Amino acid sequence: MPTSPAPEPPTYADVEDAAKRIAGHVVTTPLLESPLLNERVGGRLLVKAEPLQRTGSFKFRGAFNRLSRLDGQARARGVVAFSSGNHAQGVAAAAGMLGIPATIVMPRDAPAIKIANTRAYGAEVVLYDRVRESREDIANRLAKERGATLVPSYDDRYVIAGQGTIGLEIARQARDAKADLDAVIVPCGGGGLISGCALALAEECPGVDIHSAEPNGFDDTMRSLEAGKRVANAPDAKTICDALMLPTPGEMTFAINRRLLKGGLAVSDDDARRAMKAAFQFLKLVVEPGGAVALAAVLAGAYDGRRKTLAVVCSGGNVDAATFAAALAVKEN
Amino acid sequence: MPTSPAPEPPTYADVEDAAKRIAGHVVTTPLLESPLLNERVGGRLLVKAEPLQRTGSFKFRGAFNRLSRLDGQARARGVVAFSSGNHAQGVAAAAGMLGIPATIVMPRDAPAIKIANTRAYGAEVVLYDRVRESREDIANRLAKERGATLVPSYDDRYVIAGQGTIGLEIARQARDAKADLDAVIVPCGGGGLISGCALALAEECPGVDIHSAEPNGFDDTMRSLEAGKRVANAPDAKTICDALMLPTPGEMTFAINRRLLKGGLAVSDDDARRAMKAAFQFLKLVVEPGGAVALAAVLAGAYDGRRKTLAVVCSGGNVDAATFAAALAVKEN
Repeated sequence: MPTSPAPEPPTYADVEDAAKRIAGHVVTTPLLESPLLNERVGGRLLVKAEPLQRTGSFKFRGAFNRLSRLDGQARARGVVAFSSGNHAQGVAAAAGMLGIPATIVMPRDAPAIKIANTRAYGAEVVLYDRVRESREDIANRLAKERGATLVPSYDDRYVIAGQGTIGLEIARQARDAKADLDAVIVPCGGGGLISGCALALAEECPGVDIHSAEPNGFDDTMRSLEAGKRVANAPDAKTICDALMLPTPGEMTFAINRRLLKGGLAVSDDDARRAMKAAFQFLKLVVEPGGAVALAAVLAGAYDGRRKTLAVVCSGGNVDAATFAAALAVKEN
Repeated sequence: MPTSPAPEPPTYADVEDAAKRIAGHVVTTPLLESPLLNERVGGRLLVKAEPLQRTGSFKFRGAFNRLSRLDGQARARGVVAFSSGNHAQGVAAAAGMLGIPATIVMPRDAPAIKIANTRAYGAEVVLYDRVRESREDIANRLAKERGATLVPSYDDRYVIAGQGTIGLEIARQARDAKADLDAVIVPCGGGGLISGCALALAEECPGVDIHSAEPNGFDDTMRSLEAGKRVANAPDAKTICDALMLPTPGEMTFAINRRLLKGGLAVSDDDARRAMKAAFQFLKLVVEPGGAVALAAVLAGAYDGRRKTLAVVCSGGNVDAATFAAALAVKEN
């Protein structure tokens, strides 16, 4: 029988443990700073450059931490995951490095680069129709048929702990840069990245304000934090932020976020495009729409960064050339 | 009287000394690696990501090393430099950090982002006509009028030594990545970057082959290495690699390069565009045309990287949005 995801929520100790386990396998991504961008913000802005991570997004961290804990038998039976793209690539690459067969269930309309790269990392890709089919059903059926382990994209103790290593690195790198952080802003889809970061930052930078950043229409975590309970997005909501298109906050992640987050921020698609352009211009970093929403929240003024010292996570850079070129052509405010 | 550039050529000890002097002021840029890019090359390819440097190119290193050696009086009288853009920004930013007034002579047709950023770092920009005017004359006249120090963009002991710190970092980072380098390929305009890197690498990685990379039409270093003496480019040569449009190799730089380089490589503008696209896709790094020629030399097959372990320098990322979007739309081979 496949092992179920561990039901216990992660702790700070799990994040520390994940950092040890993934050391040498992940890139310690730089915390970038641009004097010209600081001037525009009117404060000090540090940018965690996670597009430079293996597979082009933070997802590799959680995937590697999760997969490296499977025993020999579970490894031989393989893993199954469903994802619109970044978790797919993270699981595929981690599985490849650990010699584990991986099957990834992806929507037919996911960005072409994400599908192509997932295959290139050696995983079998099973495409489904986002409207007519349930990816959960397909993934569960595949996992059952093959005796494989299902790797959740966020609601999992070890996945969250792996993503939280970004929070540990931000805290250390900010100290090295003599930056005393007032706030950290993190993109939020299911909430795995921000909940892991929050576990790390609450311990490492006590008193720092942690905010989620989401695209309009998928601002479920912002509204859930305000409501004190998990609320859903409208089923017909649209955004260019493909990595953040999830119906509700995760159960495990929201329990952490409700406790540790100061609040939520939301931005428009054009705000995300303008942030992508700013990252191109000032940081020389390729950021995908969903990966740019925290930077967008600062640049668009959803968070007032004046006279503050801030860190934002740019969480991924897997974007097709046409989408990126369109972002560079966005109208400035 | 302004101090003249030191006439002695730099040594390995100067590079080591530069590394100490610029530590804490420059970004230790990462040496990136992509399994998918390795697969395409058929070898192991490490990419020094110098677009992530302050001011978006390696030029800040040499400029900071040079300017930090001026005494109080010389600092008060200011500095003058001429440059199509990256040296301009490097000198402007280093001068700003050291409280030195800077005047930069730039061609009117330099990329808009390079002119705008040079001004934003606090320098006075004097524009000239590339066809009708001599930038040397203008810069010399300004330096004389103001008693300011002229900061050469490559033929200078401390400028070369500063750029050479990239070679030191590559050697150390390659060791950390357990990569035993067969060859290092470096973009070459006046030759300051590659001569500095060669001084470092000859000492740190004895036996490594060092190659220059240039755009067709501005392949003067390749042809000079073959001829055993400095030869010039055709005056009507054209390239999109604006950072590498220089008439001949430098005198001081070529004396070093002739001794330490294995040979030269040249690529087309479309090769450079395809390398920019590959850096976008696989590394999430923004690279300008001239900064991409070493990567292009490997991807286009000018250097056969199969079964080799290589490092290439991507030397800068200051590129206008329209030029970058056009590169992403380049036809694949």
